[in-house]
Amino acid sequence: MNFINAIEAAWEKKNTLLCVGLDPDLNKIPPHIRKMDAPVFEFNKAIIDSTSDLVCAYKPQIAYYSASGSEGELEMTIEYIHRNYPAIPVILDSKRGDIGSTANMYAMEAFDRYHADAVTLNPYMGSDTLEPFLNREEKGIIILCRTSNPGAKEIQDLESNGKKIYGIIAEKASKQWNYNGNVLLVVGATYPQELSEIRAIAPDIPFLVPGIGAQGGDVEKAVINGRNLNGTGMIINSSRAIIYASSGNDFAQAARTAAMGLRDEINLYR
Amino acid sequence: MNFINAIEAAWEKKNTLLCVGLDPDLNKIPPHIRKMDAPVFEFNKAIIDSTSDLVCAYKPQIAYYSASGSEGELEMTIEYIHRNYPAIPVILDSKRGDIGSTANMYAMEAFDRYHADAVTLNPYMGSDTLEPFLNREEKGIIILCRTSNPGAKEIQDLESNGKKIYGIIAEKASKQWNYNGNVLLVVGATYPQELSEIRAIAPDIPFLVPGIGAQGGDVEKAVINGRNLNGTGMIINSSRAIIYASSGNDFAQAARTAAMGLRDEINLYR
Repeated sequence: MNFINAIEAAWEKKNTLLCVGLDPDLNKIPPHIRKMDAPVFEFNKAIIDSTSDLVCAYKPQIAYYSASGSEGELEMTIEYIHRNYPAIPVILDSKRGDIGSTANMYAMEAFDRYHADAVTLNPYMGSDTLEPFLNREEKGIIILCRTSNPGAKEIQDLESNGKKIYGIIAEKASKQWNYNGNVLLVVGATYPQELSEIRAIAPDIPFLVPGIGAQGGDVEKAVINGRNLNGTGMIINSSRAIIYASSGNDFAQAARTAAMGLRDEINLYR
Repeated sequence: MNFINAIEAAWEKKNTLLCVGLDPDLNKIPPHIRKMDAPVFEFNKAIIDSTSDLVCAYKPQIAYYSASGSEGELEMTIEYIHRNYPAIPVILDSKRGDIGSTANMYAMEAFDRYHADAVTLNPYMGSDTLEPFLNREEKGIIILCRTSNPGAKEIQDLESNGKKIYGIIAEKASKQWNYNGNVLLVVGATYPQELSEIRAIAPDIPFLVPGIGAQGGDVEKAVINGRNLNGTGMIINSSRAIIYASSGNDFAQAARTAAMGLRDEINLYR
């Protein structure tokens, strides 16, 4: 699967920019699921089965699995999506970044072990740390640019020669790193002004947009400022507001209702 | 174990600044070890048993385990060090960095799952992403400042208001993030000038120094530029040049010889 092609097909055919974040916290999973043999996988499976027609991608955050040694359930989750919903790509959110020999190992982790279709990366260490990923043509290489958290401004908003660091990253992504046409950027929904600036710098680069929902980002402002000329160009992620929409037996149905509401709200402003 | 106290005790009592990186690549492990049930653990165990009196710390790089699903052997390795060499702290080199709720999960990964004594972190996302780690008083929180790889300069050397980004990180580490006295910085041996600048900005912060050996850093220049007023303040890591000193049956003895040589070379210039 070519990641960017798969995303573009989902935007067009399924009319959705929504990505559901699979960040299962055992303390928040309904009690009847918690008792099962593979509770994290069972929780994810129910969420996936109830939202598959509404999303352009799924995004598991690896820390929610590695904190407790549930890597096996992450493998099962990705395999389940690929087998049952082969048109839906999976983004492994791991924000890796390391020197070349180690970056090769992290590329193996994301693509050969977990069979993810895309991965998030941290650019602080520079181009040579991204190359082992960029060279995987068919994969989506999603580079942190302007993140959604309060502390993002401390480094990312520093100005150098009249350009913000996030602007420099956006330029490099667009002009230097995209030689295989597989680069995307992470730009948080919580900072609509920055979304608009980065869209101007990198008009053709798709964005992965976290920060809607629990983090407080405004859907209208995010879409208006982040969309491309086709009214797409954004993979808008929501995790907690969807997967924990209910903590009861109806959690999967509640997740569907929340996902449908957010998909439709996004589409209002495209 | 308080990480910084343990390191200072090792510097003083064992007279060594050397850290051995446990980055086992199955393709480079001697054939007779490769055939064993837990080859990665057996390889590490042999290296540890042959170098324990020569090091102030061990540093496993997590990608060498997660690429192939060998997390269990990483757990076994750290547990082996803690049980047999309780005075030697373990640095988990994972360069994590994510928003608060996820950073909490990564702190659990490093400290509650793997029982590491210190962890490496990427500061690109800002202070709130470091806090769940900084709050673990007894642990070592090792923040990327100026890394050892060729691309490090692209972002880290950008100048903002007359200060390099790595200098801004060093200042924050020293003045803002060190409220529990548990912060260290990663500064590569391959850039001695930057080592010296960062030592001037953060005179009391210990450095984790990669880049000696396979990456080409010069020992004399690194030590002279990075040491503190006591002739310590550095955890100097070498991985490949020690653990793959021989690919034959004598690999553990060869690792010992290489480690002893490097320890002594470092001590010449302190």
